[in-house]
Amino acid sequence: MLSFATDYLEGAHPKVLEKLVETNMVQEPGYGTDSFSQQAADKIRETINCPQAQIKFLVGGTQTNQVVIDAVLKKYEGVIAPDTGHIATHEAGAIEFTGHKVLTIENNDGKISGKQVDTFINDFYKDPNEQHMVHPGMVYISQPTEYGTLYTYDELKSLSESCRKHNIPLFIDGARLGYGLMSDKSDLTMADIAELCDVFYIGGTKIGALCGEAVVFTKNNEPKHFTTLIKQHGALLAKGRLTGIQFLTLFTDDLYLKISKHAIDMAKRIKDGFLKKGYNPYMDSHTNQQFFIVDHETIAKLKEKVDFAVWEKYDDTHMIVRFVTCWATKEESVDAVLNLI
Amino acid sequence: MLSFATDYLEGAHPKVLEKLVETNMVQEPGYGTDSFSQQAADKIRETINCPQAQIKFLVGGTQTNQVVIDAVLKKYEGVIAPDTGHIATHEAGAIEFTGHKVLTIENNDGKISGKQVDTFINDFYKDPNEQHMVHPGMVYISQPTEYGTLYTYDELKSLSESCRKHNIPLFIDGARLGYGLMSDKSDLTMADIAELCDVFYIGGTKIGALCGEAVVFTKNNEPKHFTTLIKQHGALLAKGRLTGIQFLTLFTDDLYLKISKHAIDMAKRIKDGFLKKGYNPYMDSHTNQQFFIVDHETIAKLKEKVDFAVWEKYDDTHMIVRFVTCWATKEESVDAVLNLI
Amino acid sequence: MLSFATDYLEGAHPKVLEKLVETNMVQEPGYGTDSFSQQAADKIRETINCPQAQIKFLVGGTQTNQVVIDAVLKKYEGVIAPDTGHIATHEAGAIEFTGHKVLTIENNDGKISGKQVDTFINDFYKDPNEQHMVHPGMVYISQPTEYGTLYTYDELKSLSESCRKHNIPLFIDGARLGYGLMSDKSDLTMADIAELCDVFYIGGTKIGALCGEAVVFTKNNEPKHFTTLIKQHGALLAKGRLTGIQFLTLFTDDLYLKISKHAIDMAKRIKDGFLKKGYNPYMDSHTNQQFFIVDHETIAKLKEKVDFAVWEKYDDTHMIVRFVTCWATKEESVDAVLNLI
Amino acid sequence: MLSFATDYLEGAHPKVLEKLVETNMVQEPGYGTDSFSQQAADKIRETINCPQAQIKFLVGGTQTNQVVIDAVLKKYEGVIAPDTGHIATHEAGAIEFTGHKVLTIENNDGKISGKQVDTFINDFYKDPNEQHMVHPGMVYISQPTEYGTLYTYDELKSLSESCRKHNIPLFIDGARLGYGLMSDKSDLTMADIAELCDVFYIGGTKIGALCGEAVVFTKNNEPKHFTTLIKQHGALLAKGRLTGIQFLTLFTDDLYLKISKHAIDMAKRIKDGFLKKGYNPYMDSHTNQQFFIVDHETIAKLKEKVDFAVWEKYDDTHMIVRFVTCWATKEESVDAVLNLI
Repeated sequence: MLSFATDYLEGAHPKVLEKLVETNMVQEPGYGTDSFSQQAADKIRETINCPQAQIKFLVGGTQTNQVVIDAVLKKYEGVIAPDTGHIATHEAGAIEFTGHKVLTIENNDGKISGKQVDTFINDFYKDPNEQHMVHPGMVYISQPTEYGTLYTYDELKSLSESCRKHNIPLFIDGARLGYGLMSDKSDLTMADIAELCDVFYIGGTKIGALCGEAVVFTKNNEPKHFTTLIKQHGALLAKGRLTGIQFLTLFTDDLYLKISKHAIDMAKRIKDGFLKKGYNPYMDSHTNQQFFIVDHETIAKLKEKVDFAVWEKYDDTHMIVRFVTCWATKEESVDAVLNLI
Repeated sequence: MLSFATDYLEGAHPKVLEKLVETNMVQEPGYGTDSFSQQAADKIRETINCPQAQIKFLVGGTQTNQVVIDAVLKKYEGVIAPDTGHIATHEAGAIEFTGHKVLTIENNDGKISGKQVDTFINDFYKDPNEQHMVHPGMVYISQPTEYGTLYTYDELKSLSESCRKHNIPLFIDGARLGYGLMSDKSDLTMADIAELCDVFYIGGTKIGALCGEAVVFTKNNEPKHFTTLIKQHGALLAKGRLTGIQFLTLFTDDLYLKISKHAIDMAKRIKDGFLKKGYNPYMDSHTNQQFFIVDHETIAKLKEKVDFAVWEKYDDTHMIVRFVTCWATKEESVDAVLNLI
Repeated sequence: MLSFATDYLEGAHPKVLEKLVETNMVQEPGYGTDSFSQQAADKIRETINCPQAQIKFLVGGTQTNQVVIDAVLKKYEGVIAPDTGHIATHEAGAIEFTGHKVLTIENNDGKISGKQVDTFINDFYKDPNEQHMVHPGMVYISQPTEYGTLYTYDELKSLSESCRKHNIPLFIDGARLGYGLMSDKSDLTMADIAELCDVFYIGGTKIGALCGEAVVFTKNNEPKHFTTLIKQHGALLAKGRLTGIQFLTLFTDDLYLKISKHAIDMAKRIKDGFLKKGYNPYMDSHTNQQFFIVDHETIAKLKEKVDFAVWEKYDDTHMIVRFVTCWATKEESVDAVLNLI
Repeated sequence: MLSFATDYLEGAHPKVLEKLVETNMVQEPGYGTDSFSQQAADKIRETINCPQAQIKFLVGGTQTNQVVIDAVLKKYEGVIAPDTGHIATHEAGAIEFTGHKVLTIENNDGKISGKQVDTFINDFYKDPNEQHMVHPGMVYISQPTEYGTLYTYDELKSLSESCRKHNIPLFIDGARLGYGLMSDKSDLTMADIAELCDVFYIGGTKIGALCGEAVVFTKNNEPKHFTTLIKQHGALLAKGRLTGIQFLTLFTDDLYLKISKHAIDMAKRIKDGFLKKGYNPYMDSHTNQQFFIVDHETIAKLKEKVDFAVWEKYDDTHMIVRFVTCWATKEESVDAVLNLI
């Protein structure tokens, strides 16, 4: 059966596997000191136009959020996040597990604004109970968000300015970063991201890799003894080459962005097809997640041949459904779906 | 340059890569629910002759120790381990990070005995300060140990009996399990291991995989909501297929044991060669780690062409060196070393 | 200067001090095993009509919340609380510090309902992402709430039923329990509280003691090795007699309720006085915290002679102010305030 | 029955209770901001001749060790301690609970030396696995030790120098500090202690107070937002006056040292009595804990009228017993014991 359920259904981009095969018997030291990881980091520094960037490769998204946030926060601090943020909802309490509170701010389409952050922090410091409260120590956002929406350059700049004003770092979860950058609606480059935030990660798991996320500290601000902290969290890969080789491949000849673009093209093909057939979108999404309002009968019929997420109830006869594309989505699979509706 | 520095210098066994390539575009659900992980678990259950075994795949050794120990221990409990145990020395405090103390017992060649465990626990319950102390909640050992030594069947049975007498689980760290099982001196099968302990892991990272360890709960004792606990620790792989496919391959046609045997053969070839040339072994090791007493000049000469670990000082003119083999070690590499000494 | 700023401004009720003086040189064993603590527990069991109650004395409120919640929750669980709950706002992340998330529900005058809890838990178990989320493991409420409001018998019964339906414990923070029980609007006895919840604490710090809270497990459900868990949290008092003697005194001849009643009487005197002088209440509070809407000039004049909390802005010319009474509040102090407005 | 079982059997020194009674109805703000706590801190600063000292009052010893160590250590660090240190043995894993490992060094009569610390840290930084190990971040000792032994000025100076050489703080657990300072064998003043260490605490619970320990940061090195960290650990007393008043009394007119001296005098009286009657001491203790070798019959006879600790077996017919004195020990009680042997 076809599936548009999520963006981690296939293995890796064929070039990634080729490189793994090609380099397989080369002997390399462990724990991220291999030459591939070094080369991958160089490629990323170049791509993001940030020569001083400090880069480490981790395995998965929740792990990355947990390690970065715990390593950066002081013991009396928590992390500000939208109430829809992945760390606030679907990471099984991985942040609290490390002793830190997630301080949520009400989202607007999955996003929060620089003004909201500024107000939150000002309110904190004006509160007479300040000493009895978790101090805001960091801001976490996702680009694209968990709803597939995007921060614009100006929105991100405003967030960045609020963080700098209050002297706390801005962290961007880029699990689907490529799909955000390649959206028609994006006015941000990876270099802009690097400049405006203090630490971000470039998601590999959902964009061409078997596993792997590249953590980038952009302001010469990698936490002291970061490798030891990674180890302490159980997150240090012995064969660091595995993530190094994958990111080296993805950041050679713009592969990361090219395959991200493909996912966006496929998402648009789905969107156009649904619209043409008279279905209404639930949100005007421009990334690789598309949401439509579909009646029960059509859903039942589709479900016989295609897997996808039924998001939530829209009204008594309709549900919101989600179709997700990725680097591996085939045009004929999209067309097969469109022929069914 | 040749390297015998450790056993995670190469990628994966070629058959593992072949299978990753072959299955690459198959769409599979995430988080360990893919069909490959299910098949791999079936193969392992068969190999260890334990139909009720509950199996999950994690990424690395420290991560596995951390997740298993934290998930199994109650909040007032610590884990008993040899003072040379990996969790007690080289995991950057990953166990303490989860709130649990490592209760160390003096090792004998990297091992502890059932009698030591029995005495430790009896002493604990006789102590008038019991309520003010960390309760022993689990026993951790490694097979082979961090020194490359092996528990015999009788030694393991005695440990198992002590644990059952006191109603606490026995956990075996099998990061190099295959290299232990294939040693001439091993009188244990994987089925024996499964029977005598309550939970163990089969190391993949050091034996043929890019990454991955298979955690096996043998007594229908997987902790409740274990997947959520794995997620909470940041250890849940989105593309569970990555570890599933690798273990499926390693446990098809006895590949895991065959390639482990190769490492042992290569270790013996090194050992015999050193002995023939008049070098003394530091310990009588029968696994894939070999320790010799070598003079400074020879070390200096060797180091020009071969990488290996200089373990510690032996006397004023000699050091102890360690050579490690693995599934990927080539006979000609061994011979090249032997020609240099 | 007079102060109505909070309810922990004075020392202890004179009878408590007398008893401390009287028993001072009696030798007693430590850590809560002293005879006074045993007698105090007996008195409390009798008062709450719960012979099987298991009772321990801790020092302060945040400590008690932290120890009880961490001891009761399983590792994959969080605690449901109103978003205005003390643990969610003013305990500096003490719950998260132990690895657990506070799962907030929107409050209504500081309260949440059984129906809200039921919906929250039902939604959790219907969520396809359940495995990736913090499991609800307990419900926390305060009686009276942080806003001085009260749960009625029916409201508490409904919460209790929701908890039992979902098989999770109900925990009541009774930092100001006496002030709630003695309110005119209370239709609950301490025995009702004991019956409807699974664990609660009787606040001493704010009601007559120098320090101390009595934790009561009402369903034979004290966590295993609870004393060791208390010690692990750094919360085990060496001279347990200190809290034992205080609670013994407070629970002899109904002292706890009598002095709570006094605080309520004084709160009513304040309320009536403000109303008579034409000030509007901000909430219709019936406990020891009274909130009024007062103009800036009056606030400025009052502040010269009386300390009290300026809660928040009401409109451009008025603020909400809070006056708190306690067991020690003197009638003449109340009258002195009333003469100033 | 008489008891010499430990030094927290009675309440508080009468002057402490008097002051609590005298100040009882004075209204004071909470959380350590009361005037008594400020005055007590001033008195202590004067006594230890350290005008820049930053002082906070906590409730108990384990709590103090936990809060101070967790607040001072960085996340990748552990605390060095003698293997007999209280934090390593009888605090139920309170340090590990906060995520930090206790790095033990072999004790000599309960003590460790500056040289041992220096070697431990040098070895750590020479270890090629350094990145995979818990970094030494602090040294913890007790004065007097858990065995009642004492560091001399020179020994403490050597420890201090090792710590400064490696740029880590020295923390002294002074649960029984007064009993150490008043020993004949002590060549240290409280000012020496303050100068040589970076943080220490002055124990009140065992010396005249109902509860309370004074934490002193001597080098202008109180951790940032220390009050918030105390709150986060559940250790912030609402009525800070309770510890403030007690320490104010204990540090007025040298009461703390005078009553400590009394305990030492009583310990000497016991020691002389036992020696005169022909019993052998187990250690040559000069503090308030005295250890003797006593035959079974005498122990049985004594136990009918006196409580004391039977420490451990000495030989087939003798046990080691421990008698502890304190500020409250009466001369007639000592004589009653001596008449029984």
